[in-house]
Amino acid sequence: MATINTNYQKLASGYLFPEIARRTSLWQKAHPGVPVLRLGIGNTTEALPEAVCEAMKEKIDSLSDRTTYTGYGDEQGDTYLREALVAYYQRYGVELQSTEFFVSDGAKSDAANIQDLFGEHNIVAIQDPAYPVYVDSNVVGGRTGLFNKEKGCYDGFVYLASTEENGFIPEPPKQKVDLLYLCSPNNPTGAVATYDQLKAFVDYARENKSVIIFDSAYSEYITEDGYPRSIYEVEGAKECAIEINSFSKFSGFTGVRLGWTIVPKALRCEDAQAGVLNAMWNRRQCTFFNGASNIAQKGGFAALSGAGYEQSRALVAYYLENARIIREGLSKVGLTVYGGVNSPYIWARTPNGMESWDFFDLLLDSCHVVVTPGGGFGPAGKNFVRVSSYGHREQVIKAMQMIEENLKI
Amino acid sequence: MATINTNYQKLASGYLFPEIARRTSLWQKAHPGVPVLRLGIGNTTEALPEAVCEAMKEKIDSLSDRTTYTGYGDEQGDTYLREALVAYYQRYGVELQSTEFFVSDGAKSDAANIQDLFGEHNIVAIQDPAYPVYVDSNVVGGRTGLFNKEKGCYDGFVYLASTEENGFIPEPPKQKVDLLYLCSPNNPTGAVATYDQLKAFVDYARENKSVIIFDSAYSEYITEDGYPRSIYEVEGAKECAIEINSFSKFSGFTGVRLGWTIVPKALRCEDAQAGVLNAMWNRRQCTFFNGASNIAQKGGFAALSGAGYEQSRALVAYYLENARIIREGLSKVGLTVYGGVNSPYIWARTPNGMESWDFFDLLLDSCHVVVTPGGGFGPAGKNFVRVSSYGHREQVIKAMQMIEENLKI
Repeated sequence: MATINTNYQKLASGYLFPEIARRTSLWQKAHPGVPVLRLGIGNTTEALPEAVCEAMKEKIDSLSDRTTYTGYGDEQGDTYLREALVAYYQRYGVELQSTEFFVSDGAKSDAANIQDLFGEHNIVAIQDPAYPVYVDSNVVGGRTGLFNKEKGCYDGFVYLASTEENGFIPEPPKQKVDLLYLCSPNNPTGAVATYDQLKAFVDYARENKSVIIFDSAYSEYITEDGYPRSIYEVEGAKECAIEINSFSKFSGFTGVRLGWTIVPKALRCEDAQAGVLNAMWNRRQCTFFNGASNIAQKGGFAALSGAGYEQSRALVAYYLENARIIREGLSKVGLTVYGGVNSPYIWARTPNGMESWDFFDLLLDSCHVVVTPGGGFGPAGKNFVRVSSYGHREQVIKAMQMIEENLKI
Repeated sequence: MATINTNYQKLASGYLFPEIARRTSLWQKAHPGVPVLRLGIGNTTEALPEAVCEAMKEKIDSLSDRTTYTGYGDEQGDTYLREALVAYYQRYGVELQSTEFFVSDGAKSDAANIQDLFGEHNIVAIQDPAYPVYVDSNVVGGRTGLFNKEKGCYDGFVYLASTEENGFIPEPPKQKVDLLYLCSPNNPTGAVATYDQLKAFVDYARENKSVIIFDSAYSEYITEDGYPRSIYEVEGAKECAIEINSFSKFSGFTGVRLGWTIVPKALRCEDAQAGVLNAMWNRRQCTFFNGASNIAQKGGFAALSGAGYEQSRALVAYYLENARIIREGLSKVGLTVYGGVNSPYIWARTPNGMESWDFFDLLLDSCHVVVTPGGGFGPAGKNFVRVSSYGHREQVIKAMQMIEENLKI
């Protein structure tokens, strides 16, 4: 008599983005022909860099010829790509070995799967609000109690509130926790942690033998000086941090799928000496994964240097200009906004203390603009919405016009 | 103080294929310049079908244009591909809904991850020998005791011995088990289950509310009549079976990465009514996965009909001809061989009761041929090796010549 993993039953509700899609689709059915302006999901919209496309087409040509065809690659990723990633980090003064990199099909998979390296009884801290995958994967992994509807929290999790008061970068927890998820530049708040702020977490983790899972998927959006692009810019981080990153937001790989995770050999925890967690993740990837698409890997390689890098940087600049337009547009109608300078996301306070899903509905209904309700990212997001700069310029401008003309607050 | 998932420590040894790679690489270093003939890993070697390449290049062209660019797709796979898969199964008289299909980055990931739907205390039965992923993923999932070195088995697992006596298709277990992994055509034995043999398992599963995880990654290699290509050809299977398949061995997607899993809405178990497991896998994929590469999906679509289908069928025919050559070559030197008719794998008994890793070393050393030691697939494989038909024809012929000339048994 097979029985299910009952942790799934603890999951509070549908995953945030499918729920947005559901509400949007319902609205569209009720308003046929009315165009919807999507600033919700962080989904890239501009063309893939030319150099990336060329590299991928060349790979397909080589696969179409039996003398150059290749089948399974290494589960950890192709050596040339891992070495290119080493060089990519050297730009920021970070020295890593290629065997500390694990290429994957994207940051989401890795962010969800990484918890499986750790025991069920680890106490997990997350920034609140946070990317739902950190939370949901640990619910399924059995590291929480039930969802407390009143508080909007899972029992057993430690929520580090990211608020206007702390500039959306909380301090390390007062109590002992075992796993700490950090994201900078942050999704959803758009806040970016300084060296000193990250150092406080690294010091905390070293002192408590905790492990930081650092999501740097938006590192290429940092435009101002003084903000680390990698947690390994902080001294001692290799002992206590795993870093996850992706080609999605840098080079438009959201649909192509490619990311990487760094598990340093120096990483250790209470019952694992240096080297053990690197070997465990290697084993995990060799057992549960069969390598990222070889076509995508060639594309990723092209994005890391030369013309591909410049074209990817231009893509980021395009979205950042969108972010500026959104920041200014929302400010103009009187909303209080954060982020959008070192991040593609603008975090906007809802007017008059409105609940975020209500403001979502209002924006959709009155302005035909889809945003992401902050409440979907955690209780501290309940009076905010995330506005994404991913979209065609003309859509972004139109959305701001619609909001300026139609939003009554 | 973070602590690790100690189930990883139970894993008996390195994953089989990395161990083969390690031994082969050591041998090559000791014998520089001597070519090695690889019939080990089931890794495709012939060119990707032309129609598949064209479709993928077209997709890249559409991604290089902002008016046709797409980002994230549905985690479950693109609708057009799920619908094409529905039509693909209709060829075998199997009616499924597109929402019962979940497109993924390959059968390996799904075969490893599927266990996460089930509770830790489920008793797991596997065919012995079996693809190591079924075993290792359940070890990590906590469904076994320690590895018993003497028996070559994990405590807590139920091993269904596939032997010469039962034609390598065991009967359902005598005791109650909760999860049953079946693979037909079988990796590694090359045996294929008849309708009646599968029906016995389906009846067992329905009676015991067990769930069958059916790996049909080699279904396209069935050349003889009377063998189901899908477990859903068996009446009642939708109530009790999940099916996993892949484009890897049909269309050469080993490196491109694309597969699918079917979780029927009728599937139920002890504490889950019809619909629940389908919804759980949907939730799992939406949380832990972000969709297969959109380029690969276009390639997969092309492989399912028209020229792409014919070209994929020709690829399969090529490998099956290799299989015939291997069967005959190994028989000629006096080895007892199985499989290779409805399967790309030949399962060869080692001479004189030799242990399979010893025979691996002998073949490598004396014939420069790499095969897969049967012992790596479970204790019942300890006097067999798996010979793979994936390889260039000229390599396969050369390997058989080397064996004929140099193998002393």
